[in-house]
Amino acid sequence: MSARSINFALLGAGQIGELHAETIARYLHDARLAAVVDPVAENARRAASYGEDVKVVGAAAEILSDAAIDAVVIASPTRFHASLMLEAATSGKHIFCEKPIALTLDDGRAAVEEAESRRLKLQVGFQRRFDAGYARAREVIAGGELGSVELLLSTTRDPNPPPPGYLEWCGGMFLDTAIHDFDSVRFLSGSEVVEVFATASALVTPNRHGTHDLDTSVTVLRLASGALATVTNSLRTGYGYEASAEVYGARGKLVIEARAGGGVQRFDAGGVSVAYPQTYRERFGQAYREELADFLRCIVEDDMPRATGHDGVRALEVALAATRSQQEGCTVRL
Amino acid sequence: MSARSINFALLGAGQIGELHAETIARYLHDARLAAVVDPVAENARRAASYGEDVKVVGAAAEILSDAAIDAVVIASPTRFHASLMLEAATSGKHIFCEKPIALTLDDGRAAVEEAESRRLKLQVGFQRRFDAGYARAREVIAGGELGSVELLLSTTRDPNPPPPGYLEWCGGMFLDTAIHDFDSVRFLSGSEVVEVFATASALVTPNRHGTHDLDTSVTVLRLASGALATVTNSLRTGYGYEASAEVYGARGKLVIEARAGGGVQRFDAGGVSVAYPQTYRERFGQAYREELADFLRCIVEDDMPRATGHDGVRALEVALAATRSQQEGCTVRL
Amino acid sequence: MSARSINFALLGAGQIGELHAETIARYLHDARLAAVVDPVAENARRAASYGEDVKVVGAAAEILSDAAIDAVVIASPTRFHASLMLEAATSGKHIFCEKPIALTLDDGRAAVEEAESRRLKLQVGFQRRFDAGYARAREVIAGGELGSVELLLSTTRDPNPPPPGYLEWCGGMFLDTAIHDFDSVRFLSGSEVVEVFATASALVTPNRHGTHDLDTSVTVLRLASGALATVTNSLRTGYGYEASAEVYGARGKLVIEARAGGGVQRFDAGGVSVAYPQTYRERFGQAYREELADFLRCIVEDDMPRATGHDGVRALEVALAATRSQQEGCTVRL
Amino acid sequence: MSARSINFALLGAGQIGELHAETIARYLHDARLAAVVDPVAENARRAASYGEDVKVVGAAAEILSDAAIDAVVIASPTRFHASLMLEAATSGKHIFCEKPIALTLDDGRAAVEEAESRRLKLQVGFQRRFDAGYARAREVIAGGELGSVELLLSTTRDPNPPPPGYLEWCGGMFLDTAIHDFDSVRFLSGSEVVEVFATASALVTPNRHGTHDLDTSVTVLRLASGALATVTNSLRTGYGYEASAEVYGARGKLVIEARAGGGVQRFDAGGVSVAYPQTYRERFGQAYREELADFLRCIVEDDMPRATGHDGVRALEVALAATRSQQEGCTVRL
Repeated sequence: MSARSINFALLGAGQIGELHAETIARYLHDARLAAVVDPVAENARRAASYGEDVKVVGAAAEILSDAAIDAVVIASPTRFHASLMLEAATSGKHIFCEKPIALTLDDGRAAVEEAESRRLKLQVGFQRRFDAGYARAREVIAGGELGSVELLLSTTRDPNPPPPGYLEWCGGMFLDTAIHDFDSVRFLSGSEVVEVFATASALVTPNRHGTHDLDTSVTVLRLASGALATVTNSLRTGYGYEASAEVYGARGKLVIEARAGGGVQRFDAGGVSVAYPQTYRERFGQAYREELADFLRCIVEDDMPRATGHDGVRALEVALAATRSQQEGCTVRL
Repeated sequence: MSARSINFALLGAGQIGELHAETIARYLHDARLAAVVDPVAENARRAASYGEDVKVVGAAAEILSDAAIDAVVIASPTRFHASLMLEAATSGKHIFCEKPIALTLDDGRAAVEEAESRRLKLQVGFQRRFDAGYARAREVIAGGELGSVELLLSTTRDPNPPPPGYLEWCGGMFLDTAIHDFDSVRFLSGSEVVEVFATASALVTPNRHGTHDLDTSVTVLRLASGALATVTNSLRTGYGYEASAEVYGARGKLVIEARAGGGVQRFDAGGVSVAYPQTYRERFGQAYREELADFLRCIVEDDMPRATGHDGVRALEVALAATRSQQEGCTVRL
Repeated sequence: MSARSINFALLGAGQIGELHAETIARYLHDARLAAVVDPVAENARRAASYGEDVKVVGAAAEILSDAAIDAVVIASPTRFHASLMLEAATSGKHIFCEKPIALTLDDGRAAVEEAESRRLKLQVGFQRRFDAGYARAREVIAGGELGSVELLLSTTRDPNPPPPGYLEWCGGMFLDTAIHDFDSVRFLSGSEVVEVFATASALVTPNRHGTHDLDTSVTVLRLASGALATVTNSLRTGYGYEASAEVYGARGKLVIEARAGGGVQRFDAGGVSVAYPQTYRERFGQAYREELADFLRCIVEDDMPRATGHDGVRALEVALAATRSQQEGCTVRL
Repeated sequence: MSARSINFALLGAGQIGELHAETIARYLHDARLAAVVDPVAENARRAASYGEDVKVVGAAAEILSDAAIDAVVIASPTRFHASLMLEAATSGKHIFCEKPIALTLDDGRAAVEEAESRRLKLQVGFQRRFDAGYARAREVIAGGELGSVELLLSTTRDPNPPPPGYLEWCGGMFLDTAIHDFDSVRFLSGSEVVEVFATASALVTPNRHGTHDLDTSVTVLRLASGALATVTNSLRTGYGYEASAEVYGARGKLVIEARAGGGVQRFDAGGVSVAYPQTYRERFGQAYREELADFLRCIVEDDMPRATGHDGVRALEVALAATRSQQEGCTVRL
């Protein structure tokens, strides 16, 4: 282990937390998984099992006061994101936080400012920025080869709706799912959102009646440049997980494909079929590793993360505006 | 020529009119191109040259009073559509009319009702309904294989913006271009539009200042079933003509491809490339022939057209609502 | 009907003959289906029903002596091709003949020479030369954009094996199926075959024991230029009809796709699927029409057919060499 | 570093050797790059720089007698493969050897037997067996979903021809390039080759006159099951690196795609283009890492490698038969 080795604590060891634990423990050479925090002991133990001599604790306070911990990865339920970020920043830890960074703009901003004022690294879990397709598309656009951007289409579809209650806890599908698309629109276009219109239906789970129990949505964004974007989301598909985008510019368009690699086409009585990702891990597995590798690099080399706290705040702002637009039936200006 | 041969008059011999003239004169066995009307003599003569012994006249009145004419194809500028339909119906002619059928709902409805009351065939030029891809998709959906429809994405992009002034004359891009998508959404979903939101920008020709001089637009439709649809349009691409659609249902999705046939992939130093349509004629050439062949069949066999006057009225209603939504910044309910 | 109208007689009204009857009667404006010959009265009547006042006879002699007949389309069983061509040529009729033109080189050459000596048009049914994909590929190659051709891969696969006995009658799969690929290799490369190696297996119908009862074959061709080609064939697929080709040159490659148009992709629990042709008519329907339209044009305008008697002879030569190579296990030089 | 950590020596630090050095030093947690051997000091130093405290020596003997070395990776020029394997086996080292394992069958067999008799792990560098596409295809076939295999097409094309002299040194393109395809045919079909026919041309570098200076080749394989395979190779493309395969069975076919991931399609004035791999590292980068990771796993867990010494011998046998068939113009039986 080199002298630069960074000690990580994982705060929240659910599905995505476990994935981050595996990455830190097995795929990052200059990192160590030092501690895992989760009130559910079984979750904590499973995540800890990827590393060696990993401390397992039930509450974050013990970890945040431990001077041996350099950085935290926050993968708790959404409603704890902002307070954990704030405490971690106050404790001088570098922060990687899953999206969305908060349930309100004030909470999000406060945490980001605290981290900034202490010159700590703060990266938000917009892993698509580290996907080969999205990254290459951004490169082409930034290089000017596409001309000025005029229209973007971004789509995320989850294979199955979440369990009852989940959407209420996490702030609804605009904050939980569409926020990836909102970030993609900003990332790909290099432009800010100035106006938001959203509408949604409950078609998949029409028998749920929470405020946020919507499963099919369309959001229209106007960018500062005058470019327009549509974001379409669904919480149930019949064919797997889908994340894709199209970017139109003055000289052509780019399509970021939803299909995964592997590259086997199958011809049989059912027609021609190609491999298609079934889960977000299958589609973005590599990107999830790359984002943590780059976060580590930013800490070690004192560099700026590719998805900053500022990016987290702006995406949240759009998601909250979409939520309000959907509820009030109006266009919301930012 | 069989006893059933139907005599057609073409009213308006511009680009699309010439295409219809060629179809009638060369590809329909039981039809005859009997007359062409166009104030521009050169246009009229060129269209007439596809047939034999075709009468060329400058004004429609002469033709409409000619008992030998069974049917008219209206391909004039948009602002004459409704009055020509009304006069043709009054004269007892079957009518094929290009889209949109009128500039106002009242004009459109009056003409359609006149034709209906006289039991004349009236078909609107929504040729996509006759395209192999759109037709096959509709079949799959109507057969229930996709489950209930939840989300549709429809796109039309023209390679180059029209000349200055054109958009004012034809009622703007919602009536002239997006109307194809509005009809596709109705056709594919089998459901009616109940709510419309639209927004647009002038990115391609920012120096034009007419009311309708917009070139990049997004329309969101809510259907009676609760399903949502986005319609995105652009009047300039860097890569040719694009018309495509996606339909999401409870059990999967269908993608109607924008690419044309021909089927040659080319691999060279520039990468891998596939044939792509450059014009709407390249993309829909076959569908334009099929729609007139089917119109002829409906006359001969006394059948109901696949795109009726009612369809023309409903699509116009959506297009006018989109225009108002864009201008007033609000959602419009139908 | 214009003065130039050409009277056709169809000799042989099986599956492919019926298709030609429909084309002549319904899709060629300056042609008339005047007579149909087939010993099976029902076949003859069905083909004749596409036109009006079509004479139906049981034997070719009556037709060939009819001065009103300008041209014949030969779609009989293979073993009658050469003698019918010879008789038609002697009678002064233009000839369109299905592939292969004969079962022996001598028979094929004699018929072709007779037609040539009388300056009659003779076209062979290599319809792929009229397919948009193959034609476009040839254009690119002939234009030099691909550089010199180095390697070609051509494939034809039939969905289902023919009935027992069929392959013996028609000379085996090299003469019946692979001959399309042999012609494609010549057409695409613009180069002649100088060496042939072939091998085959009976994997689909291993219980048939005729000399020609093989169903899976590979042929390797060496061209005069040194370029190489593989031709692979199968008489049973699990997924429809497949005809495709790849051409490699000094600067890149072209892929002529096997898929048909229609252009609908379907995403569901079974993965992503695209439309795939199920029969040769689905794949080449348009090309079958184009070849007869062009044959008619060649008669009317006294032009050279795109697939000549010479092409028929050369392809037959390769097919016979492949048959011998397969039987003797050796390479055959031409 | 865990107790199980395995010490590797790299024998040969050219292009592929450097890639293996990087994998061992940076991507395998339980491995250490302990030594690099290469007569070219610069190559050795560059490869060594991926690790820490890596011993750099000019000749293999010193390393092979070092008891601290557990395993060797042989990436030297082909003509040293067999003797290095034999010496490594005699010294009790586990062996990973690049393809082909030898220039003669006797040499290859002797080395493989020595390793086997000492129960050492021996894995051959057929990295395609570790590629997601090839591996998934094998799974589908082995699971019986495709029915019995009838026809395989395997292709490898290198972007640029090797420098003059290279092909003589490495035994020609059948031993150096096509051997990957020969192994793929065996791997995918699960069947042995019983007959080989090969032919080749010098089209890319016609001015080179060594025995092995051929650059365009076709090989036909007959398998024990009666299935047939074609292997086509070229040492120059205009469009990058290509490795792909098709497998036809009784119930359908599989296509292993040549394109790389990343998944961005680009539409512009040049048409539609998709990302295409330019080098073998771009296409198989992940597979190269997986094969060493699995070799390490086989050592640690005492498991059988996925590409054994026996596989190396059989592929070499086919490659030598293809060489002889090409030179003598005959079919060679194994």
